[in-house]
Amino acid sequence: MPDKALLTFVLGGARSGKSSHAETLVTVYPAPWVYIATAQAYGDEMRERIALHRARRLDGWQTVEAPLDVADALAAVPEGRPVLLDCLTLWLSNHMLAEHEVETESHRLADVLSRPRGPWFVVSNEVGLGIVPDNALARKFRDAAGRLNQAVAAVSDSVVFMVAGLPMRVK
Amino acid sequence: MPDKALLTFVLGGARSGKSSHAETLVTVYPAPWVYIATAQAYGDEMRERIALHRARRLDGWQTVEAPLDVADALAAVPEGRPVLLDCLTLWLSNHMLAEHEVETESHRLADVLSRPRGPWFVVSNEVGLGIVPDNALARKFRDAAGRLNQAVAAVSDSVVFMVAGLPMRVK
Amino acid sequence: MPDKALLTFVLGGARSGKSSHAETLVTVYPAPWVYIATAQAYGDEMRERIALHRARRLDGWQTVEAPLDVADALAAVPEGRPVLLDCLTLWLSNHMLAEHEVETESHRLADVLSRPRGPWFVVSNEVGLGIVPDNALARKFRDAAGRLNQAVAAVSDSVVFMVAGLPMRVK
Repeated sequence: MPDKALLTFVLGGARSGKSSHAETLVTVYPAPWVYIATAQAYGDEMRERIALHRARRLDGWQTVEAPLDVADALAAVPEGRPVLLDCLTLWLSNHMLAEHEVETESHRLADVLSRPRGPWFVVSNEVGLGIVPDNALARKFRDAAGRLNQAVAAVSDSVVFMVAGLPMRVK
Repeated sequence: MPDKALLTFVLGGARSGKSSHAETLVTVYPAPWVYIATAQAYGDEMRERIALHRARRLDGWQTVEAPLDVADALAAVPEGRPVLLDCLTLWLSNHMLAEHEVETESHRLADVLSRPRGPWFVVSNEVGLGIVPDNALARKFRDAAGRLNQAVAAVSDSVVFMVAGLPMRVK
Repeated sequence: MPDKALLTFVLGGARSGKSSHAETLVTVYPAPWVYIATAQAYGDEMRERIALHRARRLDGWQTVEAPLDVADALAAVPEGRPVLLDCLTLWLSNHMLAEHEVETESHRLADVLSRPRGPWFVVSNEVGLGIVPDNALARKFRDAAGRLNQAVAAVSDSVVFMVAGLPMRVK
């Protein structure tokens, strides 16, 4: 199905409806759908958030937890199968906390995403539109997230920016 | 006037020209216009900001102060009268400071807004496009504001996102 | 060349590809191009950032450092010559640190920019889409940056908002 080998990038702020919108887009394709989750259940707040995300997904989903090895998880997905990868900024944060070289990891991931083998949907947060953070680590994360988002947007067939649950077409 | 029963949602960042743009839109309709103000004059900075907002509005406006009871204020507006509700994020913040159940309040308000009885214009801040705040209360507010904005955008006839004083049509 | 006397405003978040996009736009015109740099090399992080920006620019550029006197720098540019002014928020920050009257300075700059004498491109950061900063100075900066961006957008012939390296047309 070469016409279905497309990368769609859904970018937006916190609580902008990114995941819901991406789920709507992916489930247009026939099940099963692969959900690649990058979230790690650190702390109550995050655990609750993951549980909420899970509760929204019904049968038909195959969940793969990949807090770090997203490229490997994508490599293991069968040809033509729809994928929802949610989300890039958590993945980046996991690599940063693990003190990995995030530029190298980001380039590797963008390279894998540039060759989708089915209808792949990637979710990420835009974090660069506030005031410059006081914290040096937060500034480093913000820069790395911006560069990763640019790299993924560059290889995407379609890019949408979510505003209050509504998609704006960027590419 | 069923053709004038429309909800318009004006969303944007700090100093993005949201209020001015919404005022321009509402004053296309004949006066009087109802201005529902959610601001509370806590502290000098806010008092100055409210005074500036007031100074911009001339005759023809009926001001209703509703830091919490916006649904009641809307219910009291005569049929067909143009309304400017400014702004949802301050209203949400007032409820959060009062330790009210913000999800319930948000659903109630979105429900009232889903049945406009005239040309109603609602202003809100987008606050989710920066780095994750350190502060748990700020994160909770950011999530609640995002959900409220989604709920209101979903029932709006028209949604604009303000960028440097210019409206981008989202819906 | 009256058809080339146009002001283009490139606005976006951190690492959104603003400078690269503006460079692509300006270099469509024949060299030499004037690069008006507002950055000051305070601290290692900023020095590194400036060095990176410089390394991207090749021959054909005339660099003018103008951390404060951008209006003078613009006045000195020959008629018809392409200009890249990068960026307004750093310029504003420099004036704020110098305790200058930023509203006056902003109006003066917007006035000069309203009469471009060639294809002029101006880069600025959008900083108002996060949570309200705790810090009063950060709030003041955010407000001043929002007002400056509105004033420049108002006199621009073209305004783009960058999302993950991709331009969205606003005006």
